[in-house]
Amino acid sequence: MNTKTIQSGIKGSPQQVTIQDDFWGRYIRLVQDVVIPYQYEALHDRVPEAEPSYAVSNFEIAAGRKKGEFGGMVFQDSDLAKWLEAVGYSLSIKPDSELERQADELIDLIGEAQQVDGYLNTYFTIKEPEKRWTNLNECHELYCAGHFIEAAIAYYEATGKRKLLDIMCRMVDYIDSVFGPEEGKLKGYDGHQEIELALVKLYRLTGDEKYLKLSSFFIDERGQAPYFLLQEWEKRGRSSFWSGTKTDSLDLKYNQSHAPVREQTVAVGHSVRAVYMYTAMADLAAITGDEELYNACVRLWNNMADKQLYITGGIGSTHIGEAFTFDYDLPNDTVYAETCASIGLIFFAQRMLRLRPDAQYADVMERALYNNVLGSMAQDGKHYFYVNPLEVWPQACSCNPDKHHVKSERQGWFGCSCCPPNVARLLTSLNRFIYTTHGDTLYTHLYIGSEVVTELGDTAVTIHQQSEFPWDGTVTMKVNPAAEAEFGIALRIPSWSKGMEIRVNGAAISIDESVSHGYRIIRRTWKAGDVIEARVPMEVHRIYAHPNLRADAHKVAIQRGPLVYCLEGADNGEPLSSISLSEGGAFTETFDETLLGGAVVVEGSGSRIDQQGWTGGLYGTVKASVESVAVKAVPYYLWGNRGSGEMKVWIPEDKA
Amino acid sequence: MNTKTIQSGIKGSPQQVTIQDDFWGRYIRLVQDVVIPYQYEALHDRVPEAEPSYAVSNFEIAAGRKKGEFGGMVFQDSDLAKWLEAVGYSLSIKPDSELERQADELIDLIGEAQQVDGYLNTYFTIKEPEKRWTNLNECHELYCAGHFIEAAIAYYEATGKRKLLDIMCRMVDYIDSVFGPEEGKLKGYDGHQEIELALVKLYRLTGDEKYLKLSSFFIDERGQAPYFLLQEWEKRGRSSFWSGTKTDSLDLKYNQSHAPVREQTVAVGHSVRAVYMYTAMADLAAITGDEELYNACVRLWNNMADKQLYITGGIGSTHIGEAFTFDYDLPNDTVYAETCASIGLIFFAQRMLRLRPDAQYADVMERALYNNVLGSMAQDGKHYFYVNPLEVWPQACSCNPDKHHVKSERQGWFGCSCCPPNVARLLTSLNRFIYTTHGDTLYTHLYIGSEVVTELGDTAVTIHQQSEFPWDGTVTMKVNPAAEAEFGIALRIPSWSKGMEIRVNGAAISIDESVSHGYRIIRRTWKAGDVIEARVPMEVHRIYAHPNLRADAHKVAIQRGPLVYCLEGADNGEPLSSISLSEGGAFTETFDETLLGGAVVVEGSGSRIDQQGWTGGLYGTVKASVESVAVKAVPYYLWGNRGSGEMKVWIPEDKA
Repeated sequence: MNTKTIQSGIKGSPQQVTIQDDFWGRYIRLVQDVVIPYQYEALHDRVPEAEPSYAVSNFEIAAGRKKGEFGGMVFQDSDLAKWLEAVGYSLSIKPDSELERQADELIDLIGEAQQVDGYLNTYFTIKEPEKRWTNLNECHELYCAGHFIEAAIAYYEATGKRKLLDIMCRMVDYIDSVFGPEEGKLKGYDGHQEIELALVKLYRLTGDEKYLKLSSFFIDERGQAPYFLLQEWEKRGRSSFWSGTKTDSLDLKYNQSHAPVREQTVAVGHSVRAVYMYTAMADLAAITGDEELYNACVRLWNNMADKQLYITGGIGSTHIGEAFTFDYDLPNDTVYAETCASIGLIFFAQRMLRLRPDAQYADVMERALYNNVLGSMAQDGKHYFYVNPLEVWPQACSCNPDKHHVKSERQGWFGCSCCPPNVARLLTSLNRFIYTTHGDTLYTHLYIGSEVVTELGDTAVTIHQQSEFPWDGTVTMKVNPAAEAEFGIALRIPSWSKGMEIRVNGAAISIDESVSHGYRIIRRTWKAGDVIEARVPMEVHRIYAHPNLRADAHKVAIQRGPLVYCLEGADNGEPLSSISLSEGGAFTETFDETLLGGAVVVEGSGSRIDQQGWTGGLYGTVKASVESVAVKAVPYYLWGNRGSGEMKVWIPEDKA
Repeated sequence: MNTKTIQSGIKGSPQQVTIQDDFWGRYIRLVQDVVIPYQYEALHDRVPEAEPSYAVSNFEIAAGRKKGEFGGMVFQDSDLAKWLEAVGYSLSIKPDSELERQADELIDLIGEAQQVDGYLNTYFTIKEPEKRWTNLNECHELYCAGHFIEAAIAYYEATGKRKLLDIMCRMVDYIDSVFGPEEGKLKGYDGHQEIELALVKLYRLTGDEKYLKLSSFFIDERGQAPYFLLQEWEKRGRSSFWSGTKTDSLDLKYNQSHAPVREQTVAVGHSVRAVYMYTAMADLAAITGDEELYNACVRLWNNMADKQLYITGGIGSTHIGEAFTFDYDLPNDTVYAETCASIGLIFFAQRMLRLRPDAQYADVMERALYNNVLGSMAQDGKHYFYVNPLEVWPQACSCNPDKHHVKSERQGWFGCSCCPPNVARLLTSLNRFIYTTHGDTLYTHLYIGSEVVTELGDTAVTIHQQSEFPWDGTVTMKVNPAAEAEFGIALRIPSWSKGMEIRVNGAAISIDESVSHGYRIIRRTWKAGDVIEARVPMEVHRIYAHPNLRADAHKVAIQRGPLVYCLEGADNGEPLSSISLSEGGAFTETFDETLLGGAVVVEGSGSRIDQQGWTGGLYGTVKASVESVAVKAVPYYLWGNRGSGEMKVWIPEDKA
């Protein structure tokens, strides 16, 4: 395997991280072997059972290679960008000349579609060339540019090929000539944040301050009165791109442009837009040392993590606007919890960890990764959830329009197919989320088998992490400094663990000493061959929700290690609502290697309402009798892989 | 008080029923003293805090009395019609010369707005005269006509004045020239059923078979391939009146035009449309003896009552399409349960009772009347619920768009204000829902204090019913036949009662004998001064839901007599989700005369999650401790009268 140098944190040293992990290795290979090729076909409209993407077709038309009409969403370009970004990461891990050839061809096509002034966007090039930059609120021009910037960087880092990077630098130079505080430029910003974080990446790669300045401009201009997006909307006669008609009002909270970002305190609006923006804010705070911006990040993080986060790491409580609602409003069945939003949350967590090592960020990152995000992809790599519910009654998904957005089985490829390529780019870049370096200490955030090559103090160090996560909490880290040297290695103490044990070269070290923000920092003089062994107990926990979280009152969730569990009709019969778990009952844990690639299954004792014994009609005065049953729970991320059936995470708990 | 002769059932004798009841008398007076005058002002756009109605203004414009534009909904006329219908019923109860003058003036106005060919509809007259009958699916022309027919009949019966009746007979004659099976006529029907039941009333009043035939035509043509509404939609280029744009598809289930009505087996689509249609179907079955139609009514009733009925008598599980969803799908918080739908359900129940006395229909009628419908009106008569939820978190109503349709406080007057005048017309005609006569037996369906004058066998009989409902189950019926005679008096045994006792002239009679379909039939030779005393025990019951009703699993509802109870934040603190009721605990019942006009309050023992003792963050592994509390429940119909707060009907039940 091959890795490229990655800048892990603004103050940290470069790291080379190679994932060597049974659990995640399988998913990364799935992305490489199945997802990327499948998405390549999908982008070319060659997947018969999926809706056409039009992404490549649009570029062919914009490039003048063929005639035709623009197809798909106004932001369809971004699907190609995200695929190219994933290809970049994948080539960093494993060279693949055929894949590289496919990417190069598409990059050539992209170059042909670029306009002479640098502009790149197939929708406006094909369909409304005179309307560039007239509807930033809805039309995603800068958003698409942001994704291509990310793709260009990933592809350059993997291959050393500059072509896409040069294309995007020309596009950004052009954007910079259109937007900015200077007289005659648009004091605007995109309706869908994305370019802000991409520009920071471009600055990191090139060191060119212009990109940093443009990102800061977009971030700081956002939400300033008199509100660019509102003025723009008035200017175009209040018309809406989506409905094609006049609209009565514009909801600025939807894209977080209702107030200056530094003054925002509560996560509102479209959840993907929100977390992409917070990610850029954290990036900028890290580079500029801007405390005010940092404090806004902390406030917004805290609001999300403490009051608006599903136990699965999902965010966004309503499909209307794909949005946050308000504190403690986390319905399980009308939920949104979009895959992309959890991916954005992982980005935000990563940036917060780069700023300051605090295990609360890693805890949420892990929660979102192992549950919401991992669960969004089918075991075949070809089917995805866009919405990730915590409770599903399949018939309600089809017969109650309030739940039409919730699917009980993963779908092939979406009309708006943002999620599948986002999963692909996250999994292929997962090596970037495991560690950060602060001073001469390497912080371990995720227990994922990997080799990290870095410099701590002035010493080159290679560390091999071996991990049995998520099934067992045994972690071994073999430390190999180039020479004996003092530096720190910090291990995260997962918030779900109790009684974690650490040994260094066989000798137990106190877990209570040198703990800082959820990490046990082991600072000593390390020499080649030193071994850290950690045991993170992975017993099953019952999780309860805050009393204000009304949807989960009187209910319990099951968690084991980082994995949240759920009940499925396939194991427990239906309706699942008849089942309750007995308070205080013991759990058994069994590794079932026949279950979807193998997984630890949890069984507890509970009871089931005896449907046969029900004597009432729709209502009755005699409570149905209950029978004792074994309640079987499987990891949430595996749900919905055995046909359409009921599923639920939160289970009523009964006194035994 | 004054009553008019009403045809109670097609095979029964005429009844004169006068309500003399403390509980309902107060509501009927509220309608007369407050609601009707308030709605009169609202119809004239003179209620400052409410949205303008435009109803009278539209008629003034259509009549040529003033210039202006049509205002309000396309079916705005129906609000005036429903008001006039309520006025008719009110004048039957209590003459009021000023009210009659107001009505006469409005009827003059309506007459002036009628077109020379008989057509009456202000929207099409003012706005699109050339588009009459081109969009039956959406534009409610026949629906509005139906409401005016009902108004005309009620007003004629109360006052003997024929003017509105003549207007509507002209309109119906015109409709009859446009619609029908004959060559050259439209084989269509309205998108919103209503005229079908109105035409049956008109037939009953006039005996003119033409009206019956037209009603039958509308009913039987509905849902026949190739689907009139679909053809009409194609013909107008698939345009939608509401969106103003082309639509991709037309949902025929929405207005029950997807299949011939006789073949329908499951209640689907817009719930008000459904029950208005079922009412007409039952009417026609009663008159024509059509068994096939009757069987369809029974099937549809059973589906609703056994699988799609809220415990409060509400129907319609989703606001999207204001519609039924599917069996056992009765969410409490995203519910619709529109007031008008429960009123339509009461109509349907009444028609089924006229066909065949079966207490299941009366049970549902009572459930809807005392809970969903009564609860829709504020104690001031000026504020209404359109949606009647079973669980409310006020912040979710404002901050989660999935619940924007649910209000935590009654509203003044709606843009689509169908519900308030519907409540007014139901309450002023409540005397029509208490009894039916079958053969020589008078069936008592509702225990509402009243005097009924009727003929049983060949004997004129006056019966005074005294009732302490809903607070106490004591009912006395004084029987006064003109001469000694044998006939039957049947008393409903409410499904919620256990151990009902009946005495005739002081002597207990067995409750198990002569019971038929939920009625104790007392057949004997009656003489003047005979007294029936009934005691219906009114203890508090715990109600459980069918195990398939997932939303209510592990929960209990409280019912006492016909009243469903609920918890409110005002009595129990918030969040209400913290509270559970202990299984098997005793209840105390206290009449609290200070509570909103006086009501029996129920207290039980339960527990509350100790919020202060919660040690987790958003999630935690230690269950919060609970404290024992008294749980206080108030009648559902009174909820939301003490400011905005949480409310719930279904309460988690804990083992004690």
